[in-house]
Amino acid sequence: MQLGMIGLGKMGGNMKLRLEKAGHQVVGYDRNPEVADVGSLAELVEALEAPRAVWVMVPAGEATRSTVAELAELLGEGDIVVDGGNSRFTDDAVNAQALGLHGIGYIDAGVSGGVWGLTEGYALMVGGAEADVQRLQPVFDALKPEGEHGFVHAGGVGAGHYAKMVHNGIEYAMMQAYAEGYELLQASEYVDNVPAIFKSWREGTVIRSWLLDLMDRALEADPELAHIKGYVEDSGEGRWTVDEGIRLRVPLPAITESLFARFTSRQEDSPAMKAVAALRNQFGGHAVKSE
Amino acid sequence: MQLGMIGLGKMGGNMKLRLEKAGHQVVGYDRNPEVADVGSLAELVEALEAPRAVWVMVPAGEATRSTVAELAELLGEGDIVVDGGNSRFTDDAVNAQALGLHGIGYIDAGVSGGVWGLTEGYALMVGGAEADVQRLQPVFDALKPEGEHGFVHAGGVGAGHYAKMVHNGIEYAMMQAYAEGYELLQASEYVDNVPAIFKSWREGTVIRSWLLDLMDRALEADPELAHIKGYVEDSGEGRWTVDEGIRLRVPLPAITESLFARFTSRQEDSPAMKAVAALRNQFGGHAVKSE
Amino acid sequence: MQLGMIGLGKMGGNMKLRLEKAGHQVVGYDRNPEVADVGSLAELVEALEAPRAVWVMVPAGEATRSTVAELAELLGEGDIVVDGGNSRFTDDAVNAQALGLHGIGYIDAGVSGGVWGLTEGYALMVGGAEADVQRLQPVFDALKPEGEHGFVHAGGVGAGHYAKMVHNGIEYAMMQAYAEGYELLQASEYVDNVPAIFKSWREGTVIRSWLLDLMDRALEADPELAHIKGYVEDSGEGRWTVDEGIRLRVPLPAITESLFARFTSRQEDSPAMKAVAALRNQFGGHAVKSE
Amino acid sequence: MQLGMIGLGKMGGNMKLRLEKAGHQVVGYDRNPEVADVGSLAELVEALEAPRAVWVMVPAGEATRSTVAELAELLGEGDIVVDGGNSRFTDDAVNAQALGLHGIGYIDAGVSGGVWGLTEGYALMVGGAEADVQRLQPVFDALKPEGEHGFVHAGGVGAGHYAKMVHNGIEYAMMQAYAEGYELLQASEYVDNVPAIFKSWREGTVIRSWLLDLMDRALEADPELAHIKGYVEDSGEGRWTVDEGIRLRVPLPAITESLFARFTSRQEDSPAMKAVAALRNQFGGHAVKSE
Repeated sequence: MQLGMIGLGKMGGNMKLRLEKAGHQVVGYDRNPEVADVGSLAELVEALEAPRAVWVMVPAGEATRSTVAELAELLGEGDIVVDGGNSRFTDDAVNAQALGLHGIGYIDAGVSGGVWGLTEGYALMVGGAEADVQRLQPVFDALKPEGEHGFVHAGGVGAGHYAKMVHNGIEYAMMQAYAEGYELLQASEYVDNVPAIFKSWREGTVIRSWLLDLMDRALEADPELAHIKGYVEDSGEGRWTVDEGIRLRVPLPAITESLFARFTSRQEDSPAMKAVAALRNQFGGHAVKSE
Repeated sequence: MQLGMIGLGKMGGNMKLRLEKAGHQVVGYDRNPEVADVGSLAELVEALEAPRAVWVMVPAGEATRSTVAELAELLGEGDIVVDGGNSRFTDDAVNAQALGLHGIGYIDAGVSGGVWGLTEGYALMVGGAEADVQRLQPVFDALKPEGEHGFVHAGGVGAGHYAKMVHNGIEYAMMQAYAEGYELLQASEYVDNVPAIFKSWREGTVIRSWLLDLMDRALEADPELAHIKGYVEDSGEGRWTVDEGIRLRVPLPAITESLFARFTSRQEDSPAMKAVAALRNQFGGHAVKSE
Repeated sequence: MQLGMIGLGKMGGNMKLRLEKAGHQVVGYDRNPEVADVGSLAELVEALEAPRAVWVMVPAGEATRSTVAELAELLGEGDIVVDGGNSRFTDDAVNAQALGLHGIGYIDAGVSGGVWGLTEGYALMVGGAEADVQRLQPVFDALKPEGEHGFVHAGGVGAGHYAKMVHNGIEYAMMQAYAEGYELLQASEYVDNVPAIFKSWREGTVIRSWLLDLMDRALEADPELAHIKGYVEDSGEGRWTVDEGIRLRVPLPAITESLFARFTSRQEDSPAMKAVAALRNQFGGHAVKSE
Repeated sequence: MQLGMIGLGKMGGNMKLRLEKAGHQVVGYDRNPEVADVGSLAELVEALEAPRAVWVMVPAGEATRSTVAELAELLGEGDIVVDGGNSRFTDDAVNAQALGLHGIGYIDAGVSGGVWGLTEGYALMVGGAEADVQRLQPVFDALKPEGEHGFVHAGGVGAGHYAKMVHNGIEYAMMQAYAEGYELLQASEYVDNVPAIFKSWREGTVIRSWLLDLMDRALEADPELAHIKGYVEDSGEGRWTVDEGIRLRVPLPAITESLFARFTSRQEDSPAMKAVAALRNQFGGHAVKSE
């Protein structure tokens, strides 16, 4: 089928390629004219036959919100917009309502796969009305991995980004799990070859996983991770996951501690630890390190 | 090659089958005469040709220690004992020394695979002298999965159980990661079908893993886990992992919180939470629930 | 000076008494006519001489918001409203703006003290314009404890509730600290008399505090806390504190784990622990407990 | 009464002064001859009249163990040794047994008070036989604070150091509680004057405590803690507390996270966070910071 794709970066560009390889016709728009098929959103809309389907793959937040707002003016009755970015699920109801006023359908799609998606497929978690999802199914089928899994219609509008958010929360804690094991092995005098241990775990163990395969790749490239700083960004889903745990009174200790470890990794010095050092100095005369 | 196997339970019995299927000759001993090939450890030793290799697969702790002590008396120069149980790595140096006095070699083998090992192979992490490990390599090769991974000689005596201990610590936090995600999805009004979401994650996602496949199986059998109580035992490796984190000053928040969640799951009521309730009542007149 | 007090429950009623004891004239309104001096907010406003000061001490959330909205209509230029409830700091800017349209000033006051405040004084953390705070200073001085501490003008509108929120977050973790120590002592075979240990800690130790004094009182009344269930509510400030940690990227492990322990204390069974039990059963054949 | 004091450093020296001020006769020994009354342990023993009481106040671990071993040879039937250092409670049974072979009694005394103990008194938690504790009671009474609290006979040998260990575990989490609150206030745009807020909390609040008084002192000296590095040592009791939580299956999330925060504060870079950064780079092409 025919699809408009807005945003042709690392993710959107590769998704366009995967769709075209599957026989779909994708009209792409990007602020960078070198990669775009058309020069504006208006031209994109003109290039598509009604009822149109447009996939928005731009940064979450303001960029997505303004793109959706512009599409609300350009598209019309019976068209569908898919937000495939890492938007917060709370944005989806707002987007759906704004588009709905013009008779435009809305699907939120959480997309996992990163740089590997082009070849291995993108796992998709989508939310929206059943009829809208069915109309886009050929697109989802082309994007998803070839096996029987990798796609779910998780519920109404917002459910796709919600499921993707939880996916990323789990991801945080899984990465932290491997990372803690790595640090402990590194620190121990009992084992000789930490990369070899991780490599061996790739088959037959309870903890085998795709992330473990990637850990092995990383350790092959740099066995002591000597060239990488222990500084870790977070892109939002982890924070939103914890916020949801708080809202719903669900204890999330492993996910939350994984998020806090990232916060800490980005601090030059810890104000909290300054306070503890100051207190120890006050009551015990314990020496402090000066800045 | 020829091997003695002591302990023919869920693990040892299946390992014997896998070894025999690979053409090895395994003489098995168990306290249960119905599954044993010989009637005593002495008979087991007699039935093997020197230099002998004996694999101990009995419960960690006292059972393993007393078996090793008995073997020290029965075996002789050039024989090798493998402890394949979930022993604490600190036992290994003791065992190795006791056996070494008699010229008997010692290998500690961490074994992962559980009920799936018979068909999929057992991941092995071994510690010991290079020559000893080489002599047992045919046995390791038969037990391990068929691919290129699943075996590591992790270092000297103790390294095998150490690597297995860390493996299990990681496992605790990975399971907790999925479990937290599960609880959050269950609690949320945004998604419709939690088992379908987990199933979809099996391909194309960052969090795909063997444990996730098993989570899908569990949810297929009981979509709301209605027949399972939230009560979780621990077999020791998690506790030892945290003890090692403390000893080596390695922060292990995700693994430790996963262990604490298990402790809490086994409490009828929490003394700590009684204390917090009592304090709130004292300062704020907040109502308490009576036992 | 003269003050209107809205809400004469456990907190508001005692604060009125303390203010009157200090020579202030307090006109009280409550939905319960038996404790009220006047029959409506309108009568309250009439009973006060301009410029008026009205202290709102009703439940946080809808009750406070509707009271403030009503006061915006009844009061006028130069009057001041104080919100002394446990409102979320984000409500304060909204309240201040609504009142400001009518020329009415606004102060948010975090109040600590609970059932002890009448005799020991109420610690006050206030936010608002300097001139407004100065006008209410006689009221603050009467409410606060007699010593040199117990009052702070923490910043502009919202700062008072913000400081109180952080106060409560700290309180959560302090209570958890004592509670964990209590549980460990209870569990240990090394000590004989846990209440006596807590009592001894009241003087000379690093951990002496008012909460410790209360812990001693609680253990005097019920040495094994046998009549109290380990079920702990939370009133919001802990959740808001963690939300702020997430927003500001401040790691708050002790406070957050204290909050999660409360969530867990209120669960009949843990969905997350069901999932872990199910996983262990899948890979290891470990027995599960049935519901 | 008469007492021998071994170790006249920051703690032992001040305790000697406090005891002498109370009218006791203290013979002091230290490796530093400038502060010692006698030149050797043998001379110390000679200078005391039987039945003797000797208080050991030297660093925990090897120094204490060797001092006790030497005293076992020098003292005799009916004498008593008190270990007032920060020894691990597991050392106490060993010491008691070694001394008991010579008919020498043993008391373990956990001592809290730090640099403030000389003037405010030392809180004491002691373990040992009833008769031994009674004989030393005059010494305990002189050391403890003047009020009715600050002393407990917590149980048999080991109970004193055990109670002190838990005291310190609680202390870790209380300090972390204030420290987290401090960092959050520092980070927030809602409050103006963090030191003033802490100062105000000293009276009337739920969280008032001696540690809070010290926090105020620290912030008076350095309002932004600008001269203190966020680097925090730990002296052992926190680690032992967590080890006990693991042994006794008592969840200690707040105490453990406080300990982990100290571990992290001492790392130049975090190997675990290197691993997480490496993984994110592998699956998402996320940029890493180079060392």
